[in-house]
Amino acid sequence: MVNFCSDNVTGAAPQIMAALQEANEAAAADSYGEDDWTARVEARLREIFETDLAAFPVATGSAANALGLSLLTPPYGAVYCHPEAHINVDECGAPELFSGGAKLVAVPGAHAKMPAAGLAGAIHGAGVVHHMQPAAVSLSQVTEAGTLYGLDEIAALTAIAREHRLGVQMDGARFANALVALGCTPAEMTWKAGIDVLAFGATKNGAFAAEAVVLFDPAQRERFGYLRKRGGHLFSKMRFLSAQLEAYLADGLWLANARHANAVAAKLSAGLAALPEVALVHPTQANMIFARLPTPLIDALLAEGHRFYRWPSSEGEGAAGAGAGAGAGEPATAKEEIRLVVAFDTPDADVETFLDAARRLSGTTLRESA
Amino acid sequence: MVNFCSDNVTGAAPQIMAALQEANEAAAADSYGEDDWTARVEARLREIFETDLAAFPVATGSAANALGLSLLTPPYGAVYCHPEAHINVDECGAPELFSGGAKLVAVPGAHAKMPAAGLAGAIHGAGVVHHMQPAAVSLSQVTEAGTLYGLDEIAALTAIAREHRLGVQMDGARFANALVALGCTPAEMTWKAGIDVLAFGATKNGAFAAEAVVLFDPAQRERFGYLRKRGGHLFSKMRFLSAQLEAYLADGLWLANARHANAVAAKLSAGLAALPEVALVHPTQANMIFARLPTPLIDALLAEGHRFYRWPSSEGEGAAGAGAGAGAGEPATAKEEIRLVVAFDTPDADVETFLDAARRLSGTTLRESA
Amino acid sequence: MVNFCSDNVTGAAPQIMAALQEANEAAAADSYGEDDWTARVEARLREIFETDLAAFPVATGSAANALGLSLLTPPYGAVYCHPEAHINVDECGAPELFSGGAKLVAVPGAHAKMPAAGLAGAIHGAGVVHHMQPAAVSLSQVTEAGTLYGLDEIAALTAIAREHRLGVQMDGARFANALVALGCTPAEMTWKAGIDVLAFGATKNGAFAAEAVVLFDPAQRERFGYLRKRGGHLFSKMRFLSAQLEAYLADGLWLANARHANAVAAKLSAGLAALPEVALVHPTQANMIFARLPTPLIDALLAEGHRFYRWPSSEGEGAAGAGAGAGAGEPATAKEEIRLVVAFDTPDADVETFLDAARRLSGTTLRESA
Amino acid sequence: MVNFCSDNVTGAAPQIMAALQEANEAAAADSYGEDDWTARVEARLREIFETDLAAFPVATGSAANALGLSLLTPPYGAVYCHPEAHINVDECGAPELFSGGAKLVAVPGAHAKMPAAGLAGAIHGAGVVHHMQPAAVSLSQVTEAGTLYGLDEIAALTAIAREHRLGVQMDGARFANALVALGCTPAEMTWKAGIDVLAFGATKNGAFAAEAVVLFDPAQRERFGYLRKRGGHLFSKMRFLSAQLEAYLADGLWLANARHANAVAAKLSAGLAALPEVALVHPTQANMIFARLPTPLIDALLAEGHRFYRWPSSEGEGAAGAGAGAGAGEPATAKEEIRLVVAFDTPDADVETFLDAARRLSGTTLRESA
Repeated sequence: MVNFCSDNVTGAAPQIMAALQEANEAAAADSYGEDDWTARVEARLREIFETDLAAFPVATGSAANALGLSLLTPPYGAVYCHPEAHINVDECGAPELFSGGAKLVAVPGAHAKMPAAGLAGAIHGAGVVHHMQPAAVSLSQVTEAGTLYGLDEIAALTAIAREHRLGVQMDGARFANALVALGCTPAEMTWKAGIDVLAFGATKNGAFAAEAVVLFDPAQRERFGYLRKRGGHLFSKMRFLSAQLEAYLADGLWLANARHANAVAAKLSAGLAALPEVALVHPTQANMIFARLPTPLIDALLAEGHRFYRWPSSEGEGAAGAGAGAGAGEPATAKEEIRLVVAFDTPDADVETFLDAARRLSGTTLRESA
Repeated sequence: MVNFCSDNVTGAAPQIMAALQEANEAAAADSYGEDDWTARVEARLREIFETDLAAFPVATGSAANALGLSLLTPPYGAVYCHPEAHINVDECGAPELFSGGAKLVAVPGAHAKMPAAGLAGAIHGAGVVHHMQPAAVSLSQVTEAGTLYGLDEIAALTAIAREHRLGVQMDGARFANALVALGCTPAEMTWKAGIDVLAFGATKNGAFAAEAVVLFDPAQRERFGYLRKRGGHLFSKMRFLSAQLEAYLADGLWLANARHANAVAAKLSAGLAALPEVALVHPTQANMIFARLPTPLIDALLAEGHRFYRWPSSEGEGAAGAGAGAGAGEPATAKEEIRLVVAFDTPDADVETFLDAARRLSGTTLRESA
Repeated sequence: MVNFCSDNVTGAAPQIMAALQEANEAAAADSYGEDDWTARVEARLREIFETDLAAFPVATGSAANALGLSLLTPPYGAVYCHPEAHINVDECGAPELFSGGAKLVAVPGAHAKMPAAGLAGAIHGAGVVHHMQPAAVSLSQVTEAGTLYGLDEIAALTAIAREHRLGVQMDGARFANALVALGCTPAEMTWKAGIDVLAFGATKNGAFAAEAVVLFDPAQRERFGYLRKRGGHLFSKMRFLSAQLEAYLADGLWLANARHANAVAAKLSAGLAALPEVALVHPTQANMIFARLPTPLIDALLAEGHRFYRWPSSEGEGAAGAGAGAGAGEPATAKEEIRLVVAFDTPDADVETFLDAARRLSGTTLRESA
Repeated sequence: MVNFCSDNVTGAAPQIMAALQEANEAAAADSYGEDDWTARVEARLREIFETDLAAFPVATGSAANALGLSLLTPPYGAVYCHPEAHINVDECGAPELFSGGAKLVAVPGAHAKMPAAGLAGAIHGAGVVHHMQPAAVSLSQVTEAGTLYGLDEIAALTAIAREHRLGVQMDGARFANALVALGCTPAEMTWKAGIDVLAFGATKNGAFAAEAVVLFDPAQRERFGYLRKRGGHLFSKMRFLSAQLEAYLADGLWLANARHANAVAAKLSAGLAALPEVALVHPTQANMIFARLPTPLIDALLAEGHRFYRWPSSEGEGAAGAGAGAGAGEPATAKEEIRLVVAFDTPDADVETFLDAARRLSGTTLRESA
């Protein structure tokens, strides 16, 4: 049985566990981020991003996103994002809380990506006192659909943002997965492409609970410090967040972990897509697979103990593709979308286990439903 | 050289480290608190507190306090606390953020304790539309002065709160230290004494970063869940917070740790108080010592590499106790307040080291300044 | 020249002016709403709405809406409304401010009305900690498109709300216009149809600046008092708001004013619709007309000094209806939407003036552009 | 019988009533402040204050204060004010709401005035991430005790503010009363003395409901526009606020009104102080009198139908002045504080009526209680 529910059902990488242990054996250390680990993490991020920056460890992606965004918008600001963005759907109002009431404005687009034209069309009301004021853009890289913005797509969005003087935040909960998939540098995917604030995720890719808010304008450092503290997100024993990040960034662990997850996802995706009655809903570009399967097959997989989520049908994706087995005149077998997520430590064997089951059950269920 | 800056300069207890490691070797676990560790922690807290309750792990004391308080006050509410309370001084507005704008009303009293009469006198304006409405009381146990409320003192405060229909929150960042000092049960120090919401601290007493918000009215469970989530304080890999708490509460570790810290503090306090030119500012009742020392002695201790904080003079504590060496007509040696904090793992030897230095330097500095 | 920009370009009705004058000649009166005018207004509203209620005068529609809504939603709540709702478009974040960060969720529908099915489909996430929690529904009667919800339509929406335990607020900035158009009782259009909180507008229909927040659950009275006060919306010389409302509700002034405005709008609408190249965008059901006109005609009308707004094209309303004068093969004349609003005191003559000009210029501009 | 409860129990001055009437007879006017009245008010304020500025009419003092302050403080800011300041006591959290959670820090001082040394001593924590950050100073002119800051006292406070880079707001609900009492220019009492933002009150001195938020840094204009709008404080028929302010500022009405009120207050104060058993609590410097009277005298005055408030004893003002009738060995008659406020239209005769009653009853009550 496999568990493909999320990349947060796993634990931490051994290197990160070891770093925590080592940090715990060290002598007393200054608290609240005045420690050496934290300083080293920021220095390392400067190297990796090839620029000056300010970096703040926090423990959750919601905090990283909402705190980062709150730097970019006044309470009467509009923040443009995809309707499926994590900040819009899955943070229970954290962006609204930390911004003091800003409004998330949804810019729809296929595969959970905002099209540049859609963004341009959505921005309005600047200077009109009745309207919330265009303030910021937030894009997720990897998106909620497991897809990627190309560098040119990021640049097209940030160009529009610049034109309207909006700041741009990137939700990088799966930053490393995106990076290795695009094969570009961290700088190219962020500040060189016009990103101002980054939520740099590590939790989903091997840490216990560690993210960094990266500010490419280090002049925001002091202000951000207060915002983090009043959010209750300044850790007293900060070194234990920073030790995770340090190990994550050492020796290419973050990249290796992401490469593994992406490779496993690619295999899983290809195997599923090869089944006649399965169709991918989105291209698999990182470590998440969205596919449409016959309901009986989904039920059978779950009944065997495999774990994954049924997923709400993506908007605009009709029931178009009837199953291959549905001949003319026959009622098509009902299909549903599922989401499979693999992680830095998903064994290759899990892919085989799941695909074997899918192939076996697929035959069965097709016969049964026929 | 010793480091008595705070009980957060230390790391985690070995048992907690081990629990984390063990949790990390377990199979995939449901995220966001739907795991077994979290369920067990809540069950264990029910046993310990001998009552039904809802418990929510969070990672910082500021979050535990501000989120807990936000259950008890509307945005137009007044929250009564001591002026030196952590929520009033050291959380950069977290209570105001999470409550949506409530007002902390300071109720002064000696040794960082609100007197019942002071609380009763401060509550006013109920039903008057111009005034913020009395909503809650927050008391710190251990206080910011290292002192304790006796059970009768807690009961006196909560009786006043009840009379005015105010909820009561306890900042228990050093809950265990208070508990073992009073020698009572957790139930006696909390819900039996009228506490509604508790910030149950573990970070300062042996965890990496783990606190529990304990609601003695479990009907608040659902609402609190949303408040925690929108604050960015719901961890995806929650089991690693809960594993810390589980180990903390197992086999009496939390109590043993606190007893050690309190015992070390008692020794250190007694040793310092025995020096002729040193006076305790507050009674030492838990793991913190506040003392007034001649400035040259402080300087000399710091110069040797010992670490601790000079402390802003507690209000109302005059320069009464002139130095022993100051004869009639001679100018008294300037004195300043310092704070020394010991932790669950402070070696007894540190006390000796520090007291030896103090005795040695005390003689020297007195002679020099004479 | 006419001014059809809005029903807030006019002043106050003479009866309201007179009431203000009379109130100003009265003796000193208790402040902050403890005066007789305010008591009488609430009593009168009880009569009019045939039920117990609590009523609070405020001075702006934004305050009436945002304060009323803030009673119905927690800061982590979702409020369902039409995308064109005033609260969603024209209040610069007032609902977000007063609710402490609630999210407005848009439920689109033709003619600025939420369809019941659309509302039912939009409500989701209840009990899921990651999602903002369904909390309230807000509907505008008259809508932003000058249309009306029938009583059955209101009942259908509130039935869904009840099923999901959501409160329902009505933005009644043009309440009287809707009421006389439907020919029902105030009770039927509100609490009998499932409305909990009403923003009862008077400003647009004859007052200087006066609205009442009407709570059909009077138990919310005390809480609302604090919310209004902290919003800075409790007037010290409240009697001058209440005197406006008292005169507004006396002798059927509010109904007569609304009937006049609606009648003028009907004539204007019919006259415009009779022009061959003009098409109504929405049915004219109250005092606002939305029509699509050839751009040259719009330009010509404005050039003559008539005042009205070009209006952003309503979603989903295509450029379908090509001008009648556009023969086959000829490029259709560009058309644009305009909004015309008439008020309680718009002279019938204004309608004639405007229609005359439109007819005259229409002939001209069609010839010119042909 | 007289009513000395407050300067908001009166109505509006005839000139302001007339201006409203005149404005109501004018043609249609652009809404939301795009009208001529509003433009003229700002121009007039520029003349009066002899500088460039941006002015925003609002309708309540709470709005004027809270919105103005919100320009000067981040949500994690500390705002220094006297403990008796209206913003601290009587606005039910409006400053906290509009600032997003800032903290009011009380700086006590005699006669409701912050001493410069007290302010300097209270400012702390700048740059320390745990503390709310010093952001602004708010001073009331006239104070809540009816006293005045001299120009040198204002300058001393603003010098400290400047040194710490804090903005300074003035609560000028009774601005005119202060101005005529000091005999200085508006410029001297504000921007020349270091004030950044002014709540310029008119309601208490002759308007129905009209205040202006005056920004001496006009670059803040756009931002303030959004803040006002999202607070629900942008009036659609703004000209009726502005017409009040225009009349208020025309022909010296505002100054004449204030001079009258102050003169009446001076007479009333002198008359009371002349009674043997009455003592002034604060010097009478504007239009408010605070005095300590024997309880039986207070009761007797109220019983005759005179209206005024018993006032909570000012801090630090002991029961020092025992009644003249209390001989040695006799128990002193209990005394209480009362507040008397006169307004722009208080008849001189009211003073005589009240003093006559006080003299008459004073004799009686002293005899009775003896």
